[in-house]
Amino acid sequence: ELRGLSYENAFGGATSFLRRRYSKDLSGVDLAITGVPFDQSVTHRPGTRFGPRAIREASCLQPYDPPYGWGYDPLGQFNIVDYGDLAFDYARVSDFPDAVRNHFRTILAAGPGTVMLGGDHYCTLPILQAYAEKYGPMSVIQFDAHSDLWADDDMSRIDHGTFMYKAVKSGVVDASRSIQIGIRTECDDYLGMAYIDARHVHEKGPAAVVQRVREVVGDNPVYLTFDIDALDPAFAPGTGTPVWGGLHSWQAAAILRDLAGINLVGGDVVEVSPPYDTTGATAVAGAHVAMELIALWGWTRR
Amino acid sequence: ELRGLSYENAFGGATSFLRRRYSKDLSGVDLAITGVPFDQSVTHRPGTRFGPRAIREASCLQPYDPPYGWGYDPLGQFNIVDYGDLAFDYARVSDFPDAVRNHFRTILAAGPGTVMLGGDHYCTLPILQAYAEKYGPMSVIQFDAHSDLWADDDMSRIDHGTFMYKAVKSGVVDASRSIQIGIRTECDDYLGMAYIDARHVHEKGPAAVVQRVREVVGDNPVYLTFDIDALDPAFAPGTGTPVWGGLHSWQAAAILRDLAGINLVGGDVVEVSPPYDTTGATAVAGAHVAMELIALWGWTRR
Amino acid sequence: ELRGLSYENAFGGATSFLRRRYSKDLSGVDLAITGVPFDQSVTHRPGTRFGPRAIREASCLQPYDPPYGWGYDPLGQFNIVDYGDLAFDYARVSDFPDAVRNHFRTILAAGPGTVMLGGDHYCTLPILQAYAEKYGPMSVIQFDAHSDLWADDDMSRIDHGTFMYKAVKSGVVDASRSIQIGIRTECDDYLGMAYIDARHVHEKGPAAVVQRVREVVGDNPVYLTFDIDALDPAFAPGTGTPVWGGLHSWQAAAILRDLAGINLVGGDVVEVSPPYDTTGATAVAGAHVAMELIALWGWTRR
Amino acid sequence: ELRGLSYENAFGGATSFLRRRYSKDLSGVDLAITGVPFDQSVTHRPGTRFGPRAIREASCLQPYDPPYGWGYDPLGQFNIVDYGDLAFDYARVSDFPDAVRNHFRTILAAGPGTVMLGGDHYCTLPILQAYAEKYGPMSVIQFDAHSDLWADDDMSRIDHGTFMYKAVKSGVVDASRSIQIGIRTECDDYLGMAYIDARHVHEKGPAAVVQRVREVVGDNPVYLTFDIDALDPAFAPGTGTPVWGGLHSWQAAAILRDLAGINLVGGDVVEVSPPYDTTGATAVAGAHVAMELIALWGWTRR
Amino acid sequence: ELRGLSYENAFGGATSFLRRRYSKDLSGVDLAITGVPFDQSVTHRPGTRFGPRAIREASCLQPYDPPYGWGYDPLGQFNIVDYGDLAFDYARVSDFPDAVRNHFRTILAAGPGTVMLGGDHYCTLPILQAYAEKYGPMSVIQFDAHSDLWADDDMSRIDHGTFMYKAVKSGVVDASRSIQIGIRTECDDYLGMAYIDARHVHEKGPAAVVQRVREVVGDNPVYLTFDIDALDPAFAPGTGTPVWGGLHSWQAAAILRDLAGINLVGGDVVEVSPPYDTTGATAVAGAHVAMELIALWGWTRR
Amino acid sequence: ELRGLSYENAFGGATSFLRRRYSKDLSGVDLAITGVPFDQSVTHRPGTRFGPRAIREASCLQPYDPPYGWGYDPLGQFNIVDYGDLAFDYARVSDFPDAVRNHFRTILAAGPGTVMLGGDHYCTLPILQAYAEKYGPMSVIQFDAHSDLWADDDMSRIDHGTFMYKAVKSGVVDASRSIQIGIRTECDDYLGMAYIDARHVHEKGPAAVVQRVREVVGDNPVYLTFDIDALDPAFAPGTGTPVWGGLHSWQAAAILRDLAGINLVGGDVVEVSPPYDTTGATAVAGAHVAMELIALWGWTRR
Repeated sequence: ELRGLSYENAFGGATSFLRRRYSKDLSGVDLAITGVPFDQSVTHRPGTRFGPRAIREASCLQPYDPPYGWGYDPLGQFNIVDYGDLAFDYARVSDFPDAVRNHFRTILAAGPGTVMLGGDHYCTLPILQAYAEKYGPMSVIQFDAHSDLWADDDMSRIDHGTFMYKAVKSGVVDASRSIQIGIRTECDDYLGMAYIDARHVHEKGPAAVVQRVREVVGDNPVYLTFDIDALDPAFAPGTGTPVWGGLHSWQAAAILRDLAGINLVGGDVVEVSPPYDTTGATAVAGAHVAMELIALWGWTRR
Repeated sequence: ELRGLSYENAFGGATSFLRRRYSKDLSGVDLAITGVPFDQSVTHRPGTRFGPRAIREASCLQPYDPPYGWGYDPLGQFNIVDYGDLAFDYARVSDFPDAVRNHFRTILAAGPGTVMLGGDHYCTLPILQAYAEKYGPMSVIQFDAHSDLWADDDMSRIDHGTFMYKAVKSGVVDASRSIQIGIRTECDDYLGMAYIDARHVHEKGPAAVVQRVREVVGDNPVYLTFDIDALDPAFAPGTGTPVWGGLHSWQAAAILRDLAGINLVGGDVVEVSPPYDTTGATAVAGAHVAMELIALWGWTRR
Repeated sequence: ELRGLSYENAFGGATSFLRRRYSKDLSGVDLAITGVPFDQSVTHRPGTRFGPRAIREASCLQPYDPPYGWGYDPLGQFNIVDYGDLAFDYARVSDFPDAVRNHFRTILAAGPGTVMLGGDHYCTLPILQAYAEKYGPMSVIQFDAHSDLWADDDMSRIDHGTFMYKAVKSGVVDASRSIQIGIRTECDDYLGMAYIDARHVHEKGPAAVVQRVREVVGDNPVYLTFDIDALDPAFAPGTGTPVWGGLHSWQAAAILRDLAGINLVGGDVVEVSPPYDTTGATAVAGAHVAMELIALWGWTRR
Repeated sequence: ELRGLSYENAFGGATSFLRRRYSKDLSGVDLAITGVPFDQSVTHRPGTRFGPRAIREASCLQPYDPPYGWGYDPLGQFNIVDYGDLAFDYARVSDFPDAVRNHFRTILAAGPGTVMLGGDHYCTLPILQAYAEKYGPMSVIQFDAHSDLWADDDMSRIDHGTFMYKAVKSGVVDASRSIQIGIRTECDDYLGMAYIDARHVHEKGPAAVVQRVREVVGDNPVYLTFDIDALDPAFAPGTGTPVWGGLHSWQAAAILRDLAGINLVGGDVVEVSPPYDTTGATAVAGAHVAMELIALWGWTRR
Repeated sequence: ELRGLSYENAFGGATSFLRRRYSKDLSGVDLAITGVPFDQSVTHRPGTRFGPRAIREASCLQPYDPPYGWGYDPLGQFNIVDYGDLAFDYARVSDFPDAVRNHFRTILAAGPGTVMLGGDHYCTLPILQAYAEKYGPMSVIQFDAHSDLWADDDMSRIDHGTFMYKAVKSGVVDASRSIQIGIRTECDDYLGMAYIDARHVHEKGPAAVVQRVREVVGDNPVYLTFDIDALDPAFAPGTGTPVWGGLHSWQAAAILRDLAGINLVGGDVVEVSPPYDTTGATAVAGAHVAMELIALWGWTRR
Repeated sequence: ELRGLSYENAFGGATSFLRRRYSKDLSGVDLAITGVPFDQSVTHRPGTRFGPRAIREASCLQPYDPPYGWGYDPLGQFNIVDYGDLAFDYARVSDFPDAVRNHFRTILAAGPGTVMLGGDHYCTLPILQAYAEKYGPMSVIQFDAHSDLWADDDMSRIDHGTFMYKAVKSGVVDASRSIQIGIRTECDDYLGMAYIDARHVHEKGPAAVVQRVREVVGDNPVYLTFDIDALDPAFAPGTGTPVWGGLHSWQAAAILRDLAGINLVGGDVVEVSPPYDTTGATAVAGAHVAMELIALWGWTRR
């Protein structure tokens, strides 16, 4: 049985994401949740290696009800498993990108889509590369305080601040049909990507954001990556490079809900750093983002 | 002397709520603040047994000024005491509902209204029962992330997630004249209660909320119960079942202020869990809610 | 394969205890680790419902090496599984004792011994009752700051402060061959149990303690229950009723190691309360206690 | 070389503000950042003596990019140094006001403007006095939850709650051309100062606030003092006297940015209390406020 | 009724010390517990103004049993009240010493002895002065990491690091019959006081310490002041100037217990700083010290 | 002036180690303190990249007095500077070992010895290599819970758990004249190094340890590396791989003091992880270790 919740108190038991089956067996699986507990590419505070574990734990409150406001229950309609985390050699960082790529190639080859629990934002680069092998250059919707577009032409540097630059430059992302949301640090060159800064979200509201995103991505295959620092530090203190003036959680929820219908092929939530998540709100937000990604992914497949 | 502040620094002394007289003597008392330090009915994180103590401590900053924006000072106009906490046998949970009911019957019989400091949300059920003996089926205004309306016909289960179901089913609440605010989890059946979800509050604003609440409750006797998880985890991390996308504190303040004139007969603030209130903001919010309830209660009696 | 460690980083993946197989299948199993996430009987601070989860997480650092100083590897020699946690109805506390008893009856009937991860100390009472059905009145070795012998003849009260009184009075423990270690609160009547207070441990050292314990328990079947508050709050801040002057962690480690050879039939570690475990040291200590219990249990069976 | 960033990782090295040169040499300096680590005048929670250090540390993430949304880089255009902190005798509080005044007289006499990192709000009074010696009665823009206008005619009392009363009464502030923003506690007498309460900011938005502030201050020399408790406790938990219903960080950012063009002569950010800043968000906000003050100060001088 | 515990759960109600009557009425009182919530004289971290409140809260676990190892119950034999805290003007620090002196003169004149809950160590100076008016130059037993004997002949400086220098120099302490325990920072001149450094306590044990203390103080009237930083930061992290290598809590307990019979006239526990007491162990230790002082005080009077 | 303390409050100013001059100028310098903020080689919890900063901050309490129990003041006798931290490219981990080696070669070539503030334990490997170029194979005294001798013949792996294996195998350490102290995890092969486990330290005491260490190292040049996890988690919770049963801080202090006279050429303190140092005690201990290393280094040179 691939669906349905094991009988367990919210506070009991080992914690798979949303209490889904925890397994490496992908047969019959529609969507695989998987963690990449990696934080070795960060400019400032580490700790996101514990992100997947914290997000799983925070998700324990959610499986009792369908996701709010969607009108359907993806947990009941799809076979979703917790595929566990990528195991890798932390002492050989240069091997890491290949390890990620192969992890996702394996899953994608078996059929399911993926929702990744990070880990730092570098992890998204090899995932995009694996996806592009299947889908070609994709649209990306990136929630983030930073563009991650600092110029860096040394492909061997493993840096969460330049991953999108490399993704665009290496052709796995179609910048002209991609968009960033929540930006509030300067960027010299967006390489053709659209962006909506955080202040614009506050002043114009989620509906305007959704309309603009739809215009940009159209019906292209979309990968949605959500850096938790898109949210304000009040809502997501547990992250490595917090910037004030960020999104409020209801705005993120509303935007994700109202994007229903886009052609989502995969997604992730990254940069949740539990050692700095003193309130626990960051993990709660991370678990909600992942749930919304599942609902969004399932919407066009339900 | 029942009014007026003892001379004490904000940081000094044992802490009664708002520095009111701490006493079991109800003669001449208009309003009794009382705690119910109970957290044994919760689905997830406990800790609300320390809620009353934390709210008292947070309230120490408030008695120096009248509540903001009300234009009158309830602390100067009414005899308000801190009646202390219900003492009960934690090792005999099945006796707890009767203990609560009797505690509130005693106070109500002596004359004063009550503002209860929780404690988990189950506590509100026996309070409503005690109030209904005096007022009949009441209107309830419930601030909450959850409806607490999960079906549960076993009246002996002591569960904070089903208390409102039991309150409605047992006839102490007039569901058709009651309303929930801040909801952001699914509910199959609201049993006739109106509700305004959190997104609606964000998109339409406090004024629209207030208008709708007034329509629903009219001049019925109203009991207002404020589950602190109505607020977003950014504003109230110290609670047992946090959900993202919640109310912001200014919205709660504005709604409570603008409800002035409703026929409030009692109220409570529940689910403040100090072990998880790492920022202290939850207790601060709880103390403000209690102060607003006092001002709201006093408005029609001033 | 019931032995051996899955390939996983210490910081990755969902966390079973010591990375053992997480399963309800007991065939071929020698020892079952199981959690009882219950904290509804406590006199003061709750939170031990999250004890099993925290101990599992802390144990992730341990499976890479055999336990220190034992000279053999129980993880390699025995089939040890993580049997998961007892699921129970938190809203019906009076049913809890039966649920625990049945949980342990089921495991014991299937053959394995158990090491329980608590949960508050009340949990030990129904476990002792289940064990006594198999072994008769047992010796108990209790590490604790409190005797838990407060007189309480109402068997329906579910109270962590009186559980040992009830265990002795109901005949499942042979008090005359049992002993308490680490006591530092007054007790009027030890009901015939021996005890070694914390100061004695500090002044006489582990060797003297071990000798006395061996004299008391002889070769009787022994159940060892370790209330983490036996340790000083410096070493175990995350517990409900901390008392200064407690054991140091090296003393507990030395005593447990040097008890090798006693006839241990089961054991537990209780009262680890993660919301108060701000340093994480309490969960680390709890995981070490559990590992020592495994090594001690295996010693006579290796 | 007075400009440009030393080569250092964000997480490395001793921390000057924005990695500026840390020096007591003011020759050629345009703007001096300086801390006043004083918290001995507070009504409730202390800790702001560690504010300067925490703000410096939080600022380490900022010097890599120009401030967001300004379109110019003050760090590249001006000589800005970290002048270090005022050293004073904590055991002789009555000497403190003179020490502050002299510290700022010295800097102002040497030419540069100042941005002060506090410290509690009392510190602003002697700074205003030093500035008034140069500029005469100034306009003040005060972000704050409290007016700090409690009547207190004893000039020797050193109290953060009455500093503005004394500033107005002693003639160093031109109340009629000054304004307070974010107020949400009662004040009997604003002494002629304008104010915009927090609710007004939420309901009318930053643009309306900016327009009103410009009307009030005109082209007068302005000193801007930002008490971090102007922000809601969700955004700034680390402060001494938190009040719910406060500003959101994006609003503060937008207002500060859109005030570009006012005649700013100096400013400060105060009441950041690191022992209570469990999320770190308060120090992050403090560092952003200081950066915005720099950009605002530089705007008319660029 | 001045004895006996009000019926209250450990976690319920406003918190007087040991649940004693909270009152300014001293008639019939044997011993008055009183707080001095002052932290304005400290060299480093503040926060001890919240010490009395935290110690009261931590004491809630203790009144259920008599103090361990004493063989009598002072709470049953003596009339002990919680006299509340000194209220003083935080904005006029120079008036503080007189306020303390008068507070204690008032109590001593009424008859009872005192146990003071601090507050920083400066508070002890005016208390010693008040006591000396009654007892003449006393013996002092000082538990401390620091001698607090830095030379400082300016009596108007209010500094916790020089208070004992001033006490000795002003003749209220008989240095030749006084002793310091736990020292582990250098001191040029002990002014004739004996001292036992922390290493000596570790190496020689409590019995040797007790013998030496008895030799020094004899049957002189003794005031015992316990700076919580005498304990190692592991046991008391919540203090302003922590030094490694300190006492373990069992050693402090054993020494205090074995001093039974000295002529104790008063005492205090100071430097508990709750904002830094992340484990809560410091307040627990503080409450235990105060209880031991009560038992020690009562021993010769029982 | 290279000696003497700048006038600054303990809580004020940017923080160099022990308030020494912060400079890259090594002329006339006897000893250079330098940080290596690197945590990218760890098996479990990261965060030690913030170790140097936290140790500097904790050291602010120490420069007012000479180190306890040494009878001389190294700060007054030697020119000691804070040389700042190694800056390196976090995104190119494979370049890190060379960067460290060169950093220390530069310092050693200029004359001074070094005390390094870590950073994780891998950092010690390239430092030992730089030292061996000057001193040949050295004795090492390693305080640690783990031997760090896991076999790992791939020299390109950058792993804190195998660094000593590589140091021994590559000939920069003379294993036969080296010793480990505090061990409490299993090791198959010590490669000829002596070791004293933690239990031995507890049972035999510091004097026996010191005697054994002196026997092993003789008058060989010694590098002393102190992994803070040698201490028990009660004393040093802020570290990546805590193990119970560790050393107490007084024991470490006593051993370091009593080693006076060994031929110390350099040293470090590593594995202080501030995000997990909830009590602050770990940074305090780290700063004390560094101070003791300075005193030990200076002893033979005074």
